[in-house]
Amino acid sequence: MEGEAGACSTAATASCPLKNQDNTFSSSLSLEQIRKRQNQFSMERDWEQYHTPRNLLLALVGEVGELSEIFQWKGEVDVGLPGWSDKDRAHVGEELSDVLIYLIELAEKCHIDLPSAVLRKFELNCKKYPPEKVYGSSKKYTDYISDDN
Amino acid sequence: MEGEAGACSTAATASCPLKNQDNTFSSSLSLEQIRKRQNQFSMERDWEQYHTPRNLLLALVGEVGELSEIFQWKGEVDVGLPGWSDKDRAHVGEELSDVLIYLIELAEKCHIDLPSAVLRKFELNCKKYPPEKVYGSSKKYTDYISDDN
Amino acid sequence: MEGEAGACSTAATASCPLKNQDNTFSSSLSLEQIRKRQNQFSMERDWEQYHTPRNLLLALVGEVGELSEIFQWKGEVDVGLPGWSDKDRAHVGEELSDVLIYLIELAEKCHIDLPSAVLRKFELNCKKYPPEKVYGSSKKYTDYISDDN
Amino acid sequence: MEGEAGACSTAATASCPLKNQDNTFSSSLSLEQIRKRQNQFSMERDWEQYHTPRNLLLALVGEVGELSEIFQWKGEVDVGLPGWSDKDRAHVGEELSDVLIYLIELAEKCHIDLPSAVLRKFELNCKKYPPEKVYGSSKKYTDYISDDN
Repeated sequence: MEGEAGACSTAATASCPLKNQDNTFSSSLSLEQIRKRQNQFSMERDWEQYHTPRNLLLALVGEVGELSEIFQWKGEVDVGLPGWSDKDRAHVGEELSDVLIYLIELAEKCHIDLPSAVLRKFELNCKKYPPEKVYGSSKKYTDYISDDN
Repeated sequence: MEGEAGACSTAATASCPLKNQDNTFSSSLSLEQIRKRQNQFSMERDWEQYHTPRNLLLALVGEVGELSEIFQWKGEVDVGLPGWSDKDRAHVGEELSDVLIYLIELAEKCHIDLPSAVLRKFELNCKKYPPEKVYGSSKKYTDYISDDN
Repeated sequence: MEGEAGACSTAATASCPLKNQDNTFSSSLSLEQIRKRQNQFSMERDWEQYHTPRNLLLALVGEVGELSEIFQWKGEVDVGLPGWSDKDRAHVGEELSDVLIYLIELAEKCHIDLPSAVLRKFELNCKKYPPEKVYGSSKKYTDYISDDN
Repeated sequence: MEGEAGACSTAATASCPLKNQDNTFSSSLSLEQIRKRQNQFSMERDWEQYHTPRNLLLALVGEVGELSEIFQWKGEVDVGLPGWSDKDRAHVGEELSDVLIYLIELAEKCHIDLPSAVLRKFELNCKKYPPEKVYGSSKKYTDYISDDN
């Protein structure tokens, strides 16, 4: 039901580490539920007028910068952010969310159907990187990826 | 059902403009379905070993750069990308997807429950930007946003 | 003489608009003078230990994000930032400087001779974009540039 | 003399590692020489018309993305890029140069006197981070830096 009860409903939520042993996310929140909620949020404030594609793109770049600042002096960081404070961990969740929200709104304002685009990209990636050709090799991996640039 | 049939299933999809008049996305694809599919994709190629938080963060920055390159010489761009070629439009869908896929995998590798983090961020934003205080004013809007930096 | 008197000398300076009609910069400050001054600044604080290539790269991304945030809600902006406040203009100068300082230190820490690399890049660009082939055409321009991606 | 002989002079240059034991850059190339050379380069191609502040900013973001892609799958990288191929090392020099060239042209197009802005920023940083308060402590360092965000 998340995202259905208006932009400012207060479901009990927290930016917590993944609890499930298989690292699955805890809910089925969809791209469309996030899009709808951000759209409501912007319209309730009459902010749609500022949400042009390049404005949103630069806002996205700004949030990616804030995310990078959390990691900038850490040296290499292991999976799961071992030893990080709850404050830093919550901060990561907030900046990841800001990037995601602007990304989804940018797709909407570009009139791109993001769910279709993502599924199509998975298909393209599957054809581009056949497992038998790229399996486990860092060098091959890097070469393949570099073809992508 | 998207995302449930393995990383390389071939549902009929396309990176097409939004058709619905209300600009809703065409499916209920969830963050968890994308996370699961990318996780399968990486494991089928033994690429998990390379997907540390800072590696994924730099990969995300790289994709944001590719997205920016599509917009860099366009001057101001209106909502809906009027006059853009199908090729450019599809390219935007691909780069938005790359950013989204890395963002979701970065959340997983940071052990951040992204759906919970997003819902919490909406609540924080609602408290931070009360409509009656920020309604429609670019100046107020910018001031409020600038407090966020 | 800038940059020669130690990291914390106090030459009379200001982040002011270009005064010269031909938009030339007001001094001959060199990449090496900036490199030396930042190197002194870091060593005086024993911060060299944190200035590894990927730490500096993420710090650079963070500063590019702060620069983008100044422009994010502005819509299209004309050359010279007409109508911008002195505060915003000074802020742009500060963020441009932060990006430049980290960029130069990143080059140093990668053991890249940035002056040589820049001159070489100009030569490569001259060969890649012959004036007679790309002169003034936005389409050709974009096509040529897109080959660069 | 670099940068004085027109945008397409061919001084003998190479993107080589720093040779000097003290890691100084090999020439006194100035911000103004780079600005002048890029200005000539753009005018010879009638490209000035496309070089608005936000176009250049997005081009800068694109180049930062290309720089990040070189580092994205490397894990932690030591000072000097030990073990990197000459090709990767040259690639880093090219992308650092692209970022620098767009950064300098962005300053020009914003009518910001970049040399003055950099010297002023050094003075601000010296006041903000007094050595006796921040010397050598990662925690203090991070706290101080975080105040900067």
